Amino acid sequence: MNTGKQKKFVLVIHGGAGTITRQNLTQQSEIAYKESLEKALQTGYQILRVGGSSLDAVEAVVKILEDNPLFNAGKGAVFTHEGKIELDAAIMDGKNLAAGAIAGVTTIKNPIAGARAVMEKSGHVLLIGKGAEAFAEEQGLDIVDPSYFYTQSRWDSLQNLIKRDTIKNQINNNNRKTSVEKTGNHDSKFGTVGAVALDMQGNLAAATSTGGMTNKKYGRVGDVPIIGAGTYASNATCAISCTGWGEFFIRLVVAKSVSDLVEYKNYSLKKSTEEMIMKKVPQLGGDGGLIAVDKNGNIAMPFNTPGMYRGYIKNDGKAVVKIFKD
Amino acid sequence: MNTGKQKKFVLVIHGGAGTITRQNLTQQSEIAYKESLEKALQTGYQILRVGGSSLDAVEAVVKILEDNPLFNAGKGAVFTHEGKIELDAAIMDGKNLAAGAIAGVTTIKNPIAGARAVMEKSGHVLLIGKGAEAFAEEQGLDIVDPSYFYTQSRWDSLQNLIKRDTIKNQINNNNRKTSVEKTGNHDSKFGTVGAVALDMQGNLAAATSTGGMTNKKYGRVGDVPIIGAGTYASNATCAISCTGWGEFFIRLVVAKSVSDLVEYKNYSLKKSTEEMIMKKVPQLGGDGGLIAVDKNGNIAMPFNTPGMYRGYIKNDGKAVVKIFKD
Repeated sequence: MNTGKQKKFVLVIHGGAGTITRQNLTQQSEIAYKESLEKALQTGYQILRVGGSSLDAVEAVVKILEDNPLFNAGKGAVFTHEGKIELDAAIMDGKNLAAGAIAGVTTIKNPIAGARAVMEKSGHVLLIGKGAEAFAEEQGLDIVDPSYFYTQSRWDSLQNLIKRDTIKNQINNNNRKTSVEKTGNHDSKFGTVGAVALDMQGNLAAATSTGGMTNKKYGRVGDVPIIGAGTYASNATCAISCTGWGEFFIRLVVAKSVSDLVEYKNYSLKKSTEEMIMKKVPQLGGDGGLIAVDKNGNIAMPFNTPGMYRGYIKNDGKAVVKIFKD
Repeated sequence: MNTGKQKKFVLVIHGGAGTITRQNLTQQSEIAYKESLEKALQTGYQILRVGGSSLDAVEAVVKILEDNPLFNAGKGAVFTHEGKIELDAAIMDGKNLAAGAIAGVTTIKNPIAGARAVMEKSGHVLLIGKGAEAFAEEQGLDIVDPSYFYTQSRWDSLQNLIKRDTIKNQINNNNRKTSVEKTGNHDSKFGTVGAVALDMQGNLAAATSTGGMTNKKYGRVGDVPIIGAGTYASNATCAISCTGWGEFFIRLVVAKSVSDLVEYKNYSLKKSTEEMIMKKVPQLGGDGGLIAVDKNGNIAMPFNTPGMYRGYIKNDGKAVVKIFKD
C-alpha cells in the first residue's frame, strides 16, 4: 500500500452492528447508508491527506455521523424508556493516552466534541449528566434543546418496543436475550458510530458516540464512554472503536483486551480482534463488532452480527464501504 | 500456607492510598484506622471461613468501610465543589465476569449494594445518577437523605481546598499536579475503599467504593465504577481493586492490564501489579496503589504514594494491617 514516497494514513469507520440483512434493509436505505459512510470517509480523508492529525480526523468523522439521523448517535439517537435521549461518547489519543468521555448528556449537540473538550480542558476523563452539560456550555460548545435530537423513526421504534415488551410480559416469560435478538429492528437497539485512524505522523486515535439502547432505563450507560471497553487507542498497539451489546463489551473490557493481545501476546490485529469478537463476546452471550487500525496501518472490522455499517479509506483516496457479511 | 486439609481462602482490603505519613497521622488516628481495617478483615474472614463466597465477602467488607466515616466512601465521603456528595462503586464476580457499577449517586446508603443489585437484577452493568437511585429504591435498598453522608472533617477539607485554590489562583499559575501533591490532606483527595477475595470454591471477586475527589466538579467520575480501570476480577487470573488518581487509572485501564499481564504475558501477580503501579502509572504522572489476589491465593498490595491503608487475612485468621511503607 505504502508507496514509500508518501507516509501511510488510514481511516476506518462504523455506523453500528446488528441484524442488518438484505431482507430488512430496503435498497433505498442501503444507498442512503452507503452514501453517508462514504461522505464521512471522504471528510476524514481530506484531513489526513494534508497531514492532519488522527484525532482531528476521528472527531470530524464522528461529528458527521452524529449529525446524520440515520445513525444512533447525536441527531437520530434512540429514545430511553421515558422518551428522552441520553448520549454517550468517548475519544482517545494514542500519542499520549489522553482520553475524554461524557455519559448521559441531553443537550450537547455533538457529544464527541464534548468528549474532546473533557480530554483537553477538564483535567478529567469522564464527566456525566448535568455536570458534563455545564462543562460543555462553559467551553462554548454547541448546546441544543433536547428536542433537536428527535426523529420520528426512533420514536416509532420506542413505541414498538414498549408495545412488544408489554405483550411479552403479558404472555409472561421475560427472556432478555430473546427479546433483544428478536427486535429485528437492526441498528435501533444497539447502534453506535465510531472512527479510528492512523495519521502520517504515526499517531493513532479512536472516537465513539452513541444514543445507547432503545428503551433503556435507570440511567443505563453502555461501553461507549468506558475507556478500554468501547474505545481505546495507544500508539504502541492500535486504535479500537466497538459497537454492540455494550454490557458484554464492558465485562470483557474488549478494546483494551485487543490492544493487550497485540502488545503482550504478539497477536496480529486480525487475530486479536477475532479472539474478542468471534470468540469471547459470543461465548459470554453478547454480540457486536469493532473497527481497528494498528500502528502499521493494518485494519480489522470483525462482527458477529448479520451486518455492520463500515468502511475505510487509505492514501489512495478510494473509499470502501460495506454493510453485509459478503 | 495451604495445609492441604483446608481449602485456601484470602481476603485483601484497602482504605485508600495517599500522602499518609507518620508525620501527618496522629497516633490516635493510626490506631483508629488500624482497628477499622482489622474489623473489616475479621468480618470478611467469618464469611470466607465457613465457605461463603468471595462476592459476599467483598460486599460485606466494603459495606463496613462505607459505613465508617474514616474512609472516603459512603458515610464520610468527600464533598464536591458544590458541597454535595456523589458516590461511585463497582463489584465484579470472577466466576462469570458478571459486573455491576453505579456512578454519581447521592441517596444510596451503601453504594456497593447498589452496584451488586445492578449486577444481579438490572441486566446492565453501569447505571448513573437519578436513574441508578430509582433502580436502587425499586430494589428495596437502604435509601438515605444526602445529609446522612455529611461529616464535619470532610466539610472542612472542602473549605480548606476551596480557600487554597482561591489563593493559588490569585497568585496565578494554576498547576494541577502541584495542587494535588500539596494537599497534605492524605486520603481526603483520592480516598477509596476496596476488597478482593479468593474463596474456598476458587472464585475471585473484587469490590470498590468511593466518594471520588474532594472539590470535584461537573459530574466527574473516576476509575472506581469503570470495570477494567479501578475494579476487575476473573477466575482465570486475579481480582483487583485500585485507589489513587483515578484519571490515570482509567487511561491505563489498570485493573484489566494487571489481569492481561498475568494471562497473556505469564507475569506473576507481583510483577504485573508492580509494572502498572510502580512504572506505568507514575510514568504518566499519576499516583496510587492497588490490592490484588490471584487464583492461587498470592496477594499484592503495591502503592507509589507514601502510604496506603491496607491489610489481608488468610485461613489462619491472623489479620495483618499496614499503613506506611515499612
